Amino acid sequence: MKKLLVIGIGAGNPDYITIQAVKALNTVDVFFLMDKGRSKDTLIDLRRDICERYITDRHYRFVEARSPERDRDDADYRASVDDLNQARQRIFERLINEEMTDEECAAFLVWGDPALYDSTLRILQAILTSGACTFEYEVIPGITSVQALAAQHKVALNQIGRAVEITTGRRLAAGQVSEADSLVVMLDAQDAYRQVADQETEIYWGAYLGTPDEILISGRLKDVADEIERVRKAARLANGWIMDTYLLRKP
Amino acid sequence: MKKLLVIGIGAGNPDYITIQAVKALNTVDVFFLMDKGRSKDTLIDLRRDICERYITDRHYRFVEARSPERDRDDADYRASVDDLNQARQRIFERLINEEMTDEECAAFLVWGDPALYDSTLRILQAILTSGACTFEYEVIPGITSVQALAAQHKVALNQIGRAVEITTGRRLAAGQVSEADSLVVMLDAQDAYRQVADQETEIYWGAYLGTPDEILISGRLKDVADEIERVRKAARLANGWIMDTYLLRKP
Ligand SMILES: C[S@@+](CC[C@H](N)C(=O)[O-])C[C@H]1O[C@@H](n2cnc3c(N)ncnc32)[C@H](O)[C@@H]1O
Ligand SMILES: C[S@@+](CC[C@H](N)C(=O)[O-])C[C@H]1O[C@@H](n2cnc3c(N)ncnc32)[C@H](O)[C@@H]1O
Repeated sequence: MKKLLVIGIGAGNPDYITIQAVKALNTVDVFFLMDKGRSKDTLIDLRRDICERYITDRHYRFVEARSPERDRDDADYRASVDDLNQARQRIFERLINEEMTDEECAAFLVWGDPALYDSTLRILQAILTSGACTFEYEVIPGITSVQALAAQHKVALNQIGRAVEITTGRRLAAGQVSEADSLVVMLDAQDAYRQVADQETEIYWGAYLGTPDEILISGRLKDVADEIERVRKAARLANGWIMDTYLLRKP
Repeated sequence: MKKLLVIGIGAGNPDYITIQAVKALNTVDVFFLMDKGRSKDTLIDLRRDICERYITDRHYRFVEARSPERDRDDADYRASVDDLNQARQRIFERLINEEMTDEECAAFLVWGDPALYDSTLRILQAILTSGACTFEYEVIPGITSVQALAAQHKVALNQIGRAVEITTGRRLAAGQVSEADSLVVMLDAQDAYRQVADQETEIYWGAYLGTPDEILISGRLKDVADEIERVRKAARLANGWIMDTYLLRKP
């Protein structure tokens, strides 16, 4: 039976990887890398770097596949993500059917934790359901960017006995958020923190967390929102891309 | 300057520890262990076990302090937690002032991740603000029980583009939850999943995650709620205590 591993590699710092993940890496024959284009080469590099660093005495190979991109002009976000995932599913099927033998173990290295805003688990489940391939698989958790954010700011995600909502910039911008007093925002392409009405809200913002380019800013929105917007824009220009996330905490 | 480390050790499996945490462990002179009484000895054991396993060529010592317990009869949850944290704060101050020298590095080993339903960060911040001790500190994230739950069930926490709320059993039982279609419930002492009206809701339940005693149950509430209640009760009786968490997903 083919064996697949979905390994969370942590969100930035190669040292975020767990011992469980290191042990798992050392059982893998083939790594499937999804290449997301030039701007994200650094992320592919980190994956290769992690293998080099932590795999000892074992032969392994990489198979790269060009990852399709979501159609950013598509007004229907959910539909465009569905399309994207279907295209990815076909690529995964080809990789599993053609790029590994029945005795081998293959792995997907997932940024952060596979359980958070990542489609690998959903796609593998869809493939199994469709019957297009057969395999067994395991999931190995990794440090998420949310945890990197909290650790670097030395702050808890929740207030005592209260709830935390993890959501997207898109939802925040659309006002689709709950009354939770702690809100973690990911995937924000539009400075959605600007939409928060209560300017006393505290923001803990972090970009490129866990990497040498890490930037941290925190304070009341009224004091730091302009600075974050400026720094964010400049960093995205300088690097060609940005990964950032933030915690909003009501006063 | 005294140095403190708040190290997330992951929630159950000793292999959940990160390389960053292992490196940090190897710089520590003294580990402050908070003993929560007989029923939780296993948790203290895991901390000692982790030190033995991962610290190489270094002398270190343990200082145990009896952790005060929250007054469970107190109707005001928030007030009883505040009392508890004040008692803990005094213990932390004593440990920092009396049980380490200025040149030493001390560590608190936190179950899971220090950012999630844990008071260590809040207490250290309160101590610094009060001026009762001076020190510098760093936070090292760890795999939370939420991630262990998702990994073991091979399920994503969020639906595509949607939000996730992390909350407590107490809040769920009181109906204080948002409309989020994914709800993670921790600290549930009262089978609060029984209060969910929509019996088509899917539950992914896990107890003693990452440990040899791990139990996983999933399915529609209407099909598995009774089983979970039964298994949970039996496990708590057998072990004297239980740690469990679950994801509720609307259909
Ligand atoms: C597709 S999601 C993947 C999340 C990932 N699975 C995790 O566990 O963190 C990508 C989003 O994660 C956040 N992110 C990932 N890595 C980050 C980092 N190193 N610093 C800041 N934000 C990061 C950003 O909000 C980004 O838009
Ligand atoms: C005080 S909170 C601490 C959470 C911890 N900081 C974390 O990151 O998981 C304790 C709650 O975490 C959950 N929990 C912790 N470890 C667990 C485990 N191994 N299995 C299931 N639930 C666990 C339970 O809901 C428990 O009531």
